[in-house]
Amino acid sequence: MPGVRLAACEAGIRYAERKDLMLALFDPGTRVAGVLTRSKTASAAVDWCRDKLRPGTARALVVNAGNANAFTGMAGVHAVEETARAAAQAAGCAAHEVMIASTGVIGEALDPASFTGRLGELAELASPDAWEDAARAIMTTDTFPKLASRRVKLGEEEVVLNGIAKGAGMIAPDMATMLAFCFTDAPIAAPLAHQLCVAAAEDTFNAITVDSDTSTSDTVLLFATGAAASRGVAELSDPADERIDQFVSALEDLMRDLAHQIVKDGEGASKFISVTVEGAESKEAARRIAFAIANSPLVKTAFAGEDPNWGRIVMAVGKSGEAASRDRLAIWFGDIQVARDGEADPAYREENGAEYMKNRELAVRADVGVGDASATVWTCDLTSGYIAINADYRS
Amino acid sequence: MPGVRLAACEAGIRYAERKDLMLALFDPGTRVAGVLTRSKTASAAVDWCRDKLRPGTARALVVNAGNANAFTGMAGVHAVEETARAAAQAAGCAAHEVMIASTGVIGEALDPASFTGRLGELAELASPDAWEDAARAIMTTDTFPKLASRRVKLGEEEVVLNGIAKGAGMIAPDMATMLAFCFTDAPIAAPLAHQLCVAAAEDTFNAITVDSDTSTSDTVLLFATGAAASRGVAELSDPADERIDQFVSALEDLMRDLAHQIVKDGEGASKFISVTVEGAESKEAARRIAFAIANSPLVKTAFAGEDPNWGRIVMAVGKSGEAASRDRLAIWFGDIQVARDGEADPAYREENGAEYMKNRELAVRADVGVGDASATVWTCDLTSGYIAINADYRS
Repeated sequence: MPGVRLAACEAGIRYAERKDLMLALFDPGTRVAGVLTRSKTASAAVDWCRDKLRPGTARALVVNAGNANAFTGMAGVHAVEETARAAAQAAGCAAHEVMIASTGVIGEALDPASFTGRLGELAELASPDAWEDAARAIMTTDTFPKLASRRVKLGEEEVVLNGIAKGAGMIAPDMATMLAFCFTDAPIAAPLAHQLCVAAAEDTFNAITVDSDTSTSDTVLLFATGAAASRGVAELSDPADERIDQFVSALEDLMRDLAHQIVKDGEGASKFISVTVEGAESKEAARRIAFAIANSPLVKTAFAGEDPNWGRIVMAVGKSGEAASRDRLAIWFGDIQVARDGEADPAYREENGAEYMKNRELAVRADVGVGDASATVWTCDLTSGYIAINADYRS
Repeated sequence: MPGVRLAACEAGIRYAERKDLMLALFDPGTRVAGVLTRSKTASAAVDWCRDKLRPGTARALVVNAGNANAFTGMAGVHAVEETARAAAQAAGCAAHEVMIASTGVIGEALDPASFTGRLGELAELASPDAWEDAARAIMTTDTFPKLASRRVKLGEEEVVLNGIAKGAGMIAPDMATMLAFCFTDAPIAAPLAHQLCVAAAEDTFNAITVDSDTSTSDTVLLFATGAAASRGVAELSDPADERIDQFVSALEDLMRDLAHQIVKDGEGASKFISVTVEGAESKEAARRIAFAIANSPLVKTAFAGEDPNWGRIVMAVGKSGEAASRDRLAIWFGDIQVARDGEADPAYREENGAEYMKNRELAVRADVGVGDASATVWTCDLTSGYIAINADYRS
């Protein structure tokens, strides 16, 4: 992609014989925006990004896998500063133009000397095509690299959006983190880039759950190099610009694609499940009810067992705390209505529900009967694979 | 216990060859108070109790296992009315003096005719000693009956507190419900009984979690027969009565005993875990952080795997949303300090943590460093047994 070069290498931070360090370099003028974890125990890299996102310009991104540099006290802060200093030297930029993300074990010191010496070499090797290398280098225990790409016309000219992500394939303990990096050659003013990134993350990365646990290191960054300006694409800066709708739609589509890949690679997952709640008082209420369903261990184990156990959906709607009418509640599995008006649908047959549950991708829909708002979230089932991965494996 | 008689029988509501229906009869003058599920999809029996608790007098309690009579529409409402009518006839009281609880499958019609004919016979058989029979009849898939008893002096005279409960042994799907019934011969005015019941439930039944799922039918009732008045015990009615502290202490102790039995019988549970959070901004904040730890699948699977994975405690503190100082956070497993001042304790040795994890009962403590408030909640671990029970078993 014009304006972005990437490289990755085996730094041996935790893993043997696989790439675990990536560097991305951006042309001068690149804007950056992001959404960071709300965790109160956020990692040192998250603190760094939160601070450096404010000026909104970036020339480099460094990501390491294997060590989250989280809960590492002052040593963690120094590790981040040292990484930024070394990357700035390699990229020929200021330290505050370096974004950093780390994923891996929590509570172990990350020695920056173990990889900062490699950054100069990565800067020399960096190429516009090394997307899969980059996507692989940020994996912890993901079972596949996660990439997506979209093209969209801004007026007459096409711009590109690329993204890489790593997910909740928490196969080794503490490897729970969502990192996603999106890149576009569209020219976007920094304040607008922030708005677009937050808006697009809302119904994509912020609408997925594997096990309800929130990482100390969750990071979504959007880099806009502006290289398309040389092809005559005028900068996006006015929120009323009519080209924005198409761009946001493409950005959401890119992020949704990556978010779904993360859920499909959820640890132990055997089913991909969309949960839609309609008829809620507000979109926020619809999301909360949808997450109550998507995070319920009883619902998730029923899906794992291919059990059309809709009573558990009723339970989860009830526990969300949001307004819902028990006596108007309706529930569907795909197109099969299982409940209406607060009781089992008289036409529903258990064998139809059981047949539907055999699908690899499932859709649950609930109308809670109190308003007009709706929301969709995505999750996976809860299998004995999850327990095996997270309990039986010793770190 | 003076003023209470109980009986149970095999009504065949769902189970073969076990008692699944119980009736308790109370002497005239018995007060009742309760705490009911906050579910928005509460069962018909819960709706009934919520309404009938207001006058605060009770002469009978009917509990059936096997069918929750939840999400059953108007048929469910009629089933409750019919049950109350039949029990009132058997007990010689008004229908509004009958409390009702049902536990079992959600969404299936409960036919009251299948058991109301037995209530007259139960009333004749009822005896003051049938506690274990009653405790067994309310079980769904609990693996043991749950009983507790305490005695406490109110002034010169002793009063008795007995309790029975059924728990989150959700071995068959949809059998998730906590029911607890406490009984005392102490004379207590209705408004005060309500206060004491709510206060005692707060740090006992409302401080436990197995899998974060909330039943449509959770019910805790306290019946005070007042029979001790005949031995000269003056009624408790003034909140300033100095005897109240001892009574509440005994009631809390009784409820905590039953609550712990429920957690220990949690489905698939192999460990009993107390989670204490100190140094929080408020008690409510401490509870929320403690529940974030106790409900985290990653924390619960680590315990199942006997993995002293304290990074997951850090993660769970961070995700709670409550104020916590990452850089003052301290964590203990039992008496072993594993983290202090926002990083690993230099003196901590992983092998000590691993040794501690082998215990059947575990205590986790976290000081979040922002205030003086604390709270304790109790939970169990998340094992492959939970998945097997809830996924592999078809309803």
